[in-house]
Amino acid sequence: MTALQDALDAIARGSDEILVIEELQKKLETNKSLRIKAGFDPTAPDLHLGHTVLINKLRQFQDLGHEVMFLIGDFTGMIGDPKTYEQQIFKILDPEKTLVMFNSSWMNDMGSAELIQLAARYNVARMLERDDFNKRYKSGQSIAIHEFLYPLIQGYDSVAMRADVELGGTDQKFNLLVGRELQKHYGQEPQIVLTMPILEGLDGVQKMSKSLNNYIGINEPPNDMFGKIMSISDDLMWRYFELLSFRPMAEIAGFREQIQSGENPRNIKVLLAKEMITRFHSEKEAEAAEQDFVSRFRDHAIPEDIDEVELEAGSDGLPLANVLKMANLVSSTSDAHRMVKQGAVKIDGERVEDSKQVLTSGFSAVLQVGKRKFAKVSLQ
Amino acid sequence: MTALQDALDAIARGSDEILVIEELQKKLETNKSLRIKAGFDPTAPDLHLGHTVLINKLRQFQDLGHEVMFLIGDFTGMIGDPKTYEQQIFKILDPEKTLVMFNSSWMNDMGSAELIQLAARYNVARMLERDDFNKRYKSGQSIAIHEFLYPLIQGYDSVAMRADVELGGTDQKFNLLVGRELQKHYGQEPQIVLTMPILEGLDGVQKMSKSLNNYIGINEPPNDMFGKIMSISDDLMWRYFELLSFRPMAEIAGFREQIQSGENPRNIKVLLAKEMITRFHSEKEAEAAEQDFVSRFRDHAIPEDIDEVELEAGSDGLPLANVLKMANLVSSTSDAHRMVKQGAVKIDGERVEDSKQVLTSGFSAVLQVGKRKFAKVSLQ
Repeated sequence: MTALQDALDAIARGSDEILVIEELQKKLETNKSLRIKAGFDPTAPDLHLGHTVLINKLRQFQDLGHEVMFLIGDFTGMIGDPKTYEQQIFKILDPEKTLVMFNSSWMNDMGSAELIQLAARYNVARMLERDDFNKRYKSGQSIAIHEFLYPLIQGYDSVAMRADVELGGTDQKFNLLVGRELQKHYGQEPQIVLTMPILEGLDGVQKMSKSLNNYIGINEPPNDMFGKIMSISDDLMWRYFELLSFRPMAEIAGFREQIQSGENPRNIKVLLAKEMITRFHSEKEAEAAEQDFVSRFRDHAIPEDIDEVELEAGSDGLPLANVLKMANLVSSTSDAHRMVKQGAVKIDGERVEDSKQVLTSGFSAVLQVGKRKFAKVSLQ
Repeated sequence: MTALQDALDAIARGSDEILVIEELQKKLETNKSLRIKAGFDPTAPDLHLGHTVLINKLRQFQDLGHEVMFLIGDFTGMIGDPKTYEQQIFKILDPEKTLVMFNSSWMNDMGSAELIQLAARYNVARMLERDDFNKRYKSGQSIAIHEFLYPLIQGYDSVAMRADVELGGTDQKFNLLVGRELQKHYGQEPQIVLTMPILEGLDGVQKMSKSLNNYIGINEPPNDMFGKIMSISDDLMWRYFELLSFRPMAEIAGFREQIQSGENPRNIKVLLAKEMITRFHSEKEAEAAEQDFVSRFRDHAIPEDIDEVELEAGSDGLPLANVLKMANLVSSTSDAHRMVKQGAVKIDGERVEDSKQVLTSGFSAVLQVGKRKFAKVSLQ
């Protein structure tokens, strides 16, 4: 029973809903290898971490001994090069336990008469209950009739594939349930429906998507990946750990404790970044990306915990050397003149040449002296 | 231009709507043989006169030189024996100008992908505007999704058949217009839509239908046909003349004038009955049915324009002989006694033997003397 409970816990991790969990438990108790279905957009885009939430869950099923059916819905969409897909997904999935399937292989054989019979299995009012259809219908936006056929075809895929479990984003719940229903009609045991949340993008608010430019592509260079992950908020970091990391939840709970005990969250974020780069590139590249990030940070970056200084400029303004002194970036104004002369002073990253320049009310910029001293200075 | 106007008048006769009449005129002006489509229920039922309203209109098109495509929608329905259909329709249509077509011949070749493309041509909101769908949706009655595909398939039939004109009942208008639209999508000139009213049954109120038992089947024996037509109201007779007779409207207008000048409407109704029997049986059988009806009428029937007589019975009542005299059915009471003795007097069709029987207040019946004299007598 512990092994079963462990399996259920692993499957439930990060999931939004499991319908119906008792049925899943029964299936797991049979100790048979289950057929796990997930459908993907046939255009084979560059996958980003948002897409991998689902693929990770598939991987967890594989780790539990089940077989993944990676369905490319090529019948109802234009298909790209499937090899591109495989190159990407086998960075996560075990190719030995993965069937890549194309729904054209059964849908191309389906005549219109059969499709009509399929359409007879569902009714208009229930289809119009689907959130997006409902909104569009009520707001007078057009819904083409073939759009009502897609959920049925997706459901029929489950029949053709004899799926035990289907995974999808929360936005797919309706369609996954159609599959359950159709399987019953066709005399099959209904599939378990498991929905995964939609991953937020780097902003932590909107869903990760290419068009919103808040994504991390799985083919992005290690350094870009590292930098993007380091840029996310601490809150979002926990979300990413749950949905993207393969570390046990117990280990992740340990990280939380470390931070509560004073560890810099940045150091934990580094672990996440390196795990992702190791997965999609290599451990070696992950190490290199970290080194690169650290050294770039050391050279150029503005620290996060920078002091903010507000000064009274008066009507005449203040010479830069005085400002540097008042902001405690130099020990004296003569020290200031010397540092400027050495080229060690920057305003917003730009080297300064004249230590006598006068800053006036309204000035606001990051002043830097040497590699370590920063202050955000505003003059009033 | 007279020939064209005559053709337009013939086509418009009895029709409910023609969309768009200017387009029809243009097509007629080409002097080409047009392709006239009408779809029929594939179960090949016993046709009744209600069905023939449409078939008559097809016949009119044939008389104008056009080709009829009699479509049996076997793809979406169970099919009976098509020969049964042909036996019936060729009593009206010219077999030389009739193509009997089956939509399975193109629909069986249509794959589900093509059907999906077809379904993409129309939207849900507009489909839900169709009267019956609208009512069912609003009242919470289920509409299966495949029901949305049927109008599209019917419309596609027009594409496959390259129909110039499609005929249907007024209840088919929506579907016929879908055909128009799909033809445009497929780069064809849109068909003219011509709707015919639904024929009322013998009651003159509800539509003619087998289940309402107010119908005249085209295979009914001549005598039954004759009797049923003679039973309809004078108003309904004009409706039947317009929609069922092949007599020119001018001739029918002449009949109206005759009746206004005193002709018994029954005699005009006989012309309608004989035309129908001639069409579906033969002229000889029409004559025989008339003879049979007249002789049966002479022997048994109670005329329609019977006198109604109300008499005061007094407290003692009145002897039958006196009642016969008072109702002007005999010249005297002794005449009455003699007629009863001869067996020539009936009460509600039952021969009377006692001329001295006393009729009392509340009596109400048809009294008949000989074959010609009738009165409906009530005693108060």
